[in-house]
Amino acid sequence: MIKYPNGKVGKTYKPKTNTSVKNRGMTLEKIVNASNLYYLERDMAIIHKKPTPVQIVSVHYPSRNKAKITEAYYQTPSTTDYNGIYKGHYIDFDVKESRNKTSFPLKNIHAHQIEHLKSVHEHGGLAFLIIHLKTDDTYWLLPYNALAYYVKRAIKGRKSMTHEELKKESLPIREGLRPRLDYLKAIDLWLEKT
Amino acid sequence: MIKYPNGKVGKTYKPKTNTSVKNRGMTLEKIVNASNLYYLERDMAIIHKKPTPVQIVSVHYPSRNKAKITEAYYQTPSTTDYNGIYKGHYIDFDVKESRNKTSFPLKNIHAHQIEHLKSVHEHGGLAFLIIHLKTDDTYWLLPYNALAYYVKRAIKGRKSMTHEELKKESLPIREGLRPRLDYLKAIDLWLEKT
Repeated sequence: MIKYPNGKVGKTYKPKTNTSVKNRGMTLEKIVNASNLYYLERDMAIIHKKPTPVQIVSVHYPSRNKAKITEAYYQTPSTTDYNGIYKGHYIDFDVKESRNKTSFPLKNIHAHQIEHLKSVHEHGGLAFLIIHLKTDDTYWLLPYNALAYYVKRAIKGRKSMTHEELKKESLPIREGLRPRLDYLKAIDLWLEKT
Repeated sequence: MIKYPNGKVGKTYKPKTNTSVKNRGMTLEKIVNASNLYYLERDMAIIHKKPTPVQIVSVHYPSRNKAKITEAYYQTPSTTDYNGIYKGHYIDFDVKESRNKTSFPLKNIHAHQIEHLKSVHEHGGLAFLIIHLKTDDTYWLLPYNALAYYVKRAIKGRKSMTHEELKKESLPIREGLRPRLDYLKAIDLWLEKT
């Protein structure tokens, strides 16, 4: 999902550059990226965020070695945002933040993302979501398998998971300092169970 | 690597949009992308090209739902271009074309790509290059392990692999119609050997 301020019609907006890793108010994406860097530097896992896909329409060459893109548009990603390898396992996930007080709306997850996670799961990879519930500031790793049940239920019934359901089905992720979000520990727990 | 026409200083260049899959003159990247789509549609493997990383400096909103990027720059990718899962294995590779008549210059491969492939290999993934030798129009899958030997040799000696060395160390990839480049078959051979 591309996030940009709504309603700023006709305005030109400068995206923020990297903010400090220590910043408490940082987005889930930044926290996960910082954790991935931590894992990479310690050779614990190789997990990267995929770049945002951009359709490039026009490129200008003001000087010989510099290419300036002057017209481009955001594209919808066809997969999830993160993938890589941990303990020989193919890892694939997306991150979701929810401000909802009592439930996690499933419309947060796009159909093509669910399809992709399903496919990864069937091919033997570890497919999941990392979810931040803002209400109580907790983080959860929801395996695809559990998610699939509620996605199916949503066809005829409730279009969300209650927080109780989400917490029951997920592995908790502890927040810390280094890394900020030690989700590999949650994966370890998951691997022990299966 | 971002490819753009050299010398067109001060000119604005419109990148080509998708050309036909049947096009004989298509680049290795397009051939591999078409093969990946073939594999995906038949649920044989989930392998995607990562989007080209772009640093977005300025975005304009001409209307409520449209974001037009008006200033952006190509960034150097920190990993290889392709990854995914096949038969439960984490797959990671880059593609290289060589016009050289007798050898494959190792300067074609960036240091950070070699580091990344090494890391993937050590974590139990399948790390390799797909190489197109234009001289005799042949395609090769070169496993990281073999590449590593020649990268090491290049520190004090020869900075390239001869075509003979490359072919001896690689698995041949057959060109066909569907998919255009059946590199999963080469991976199967590789898995049988190891």
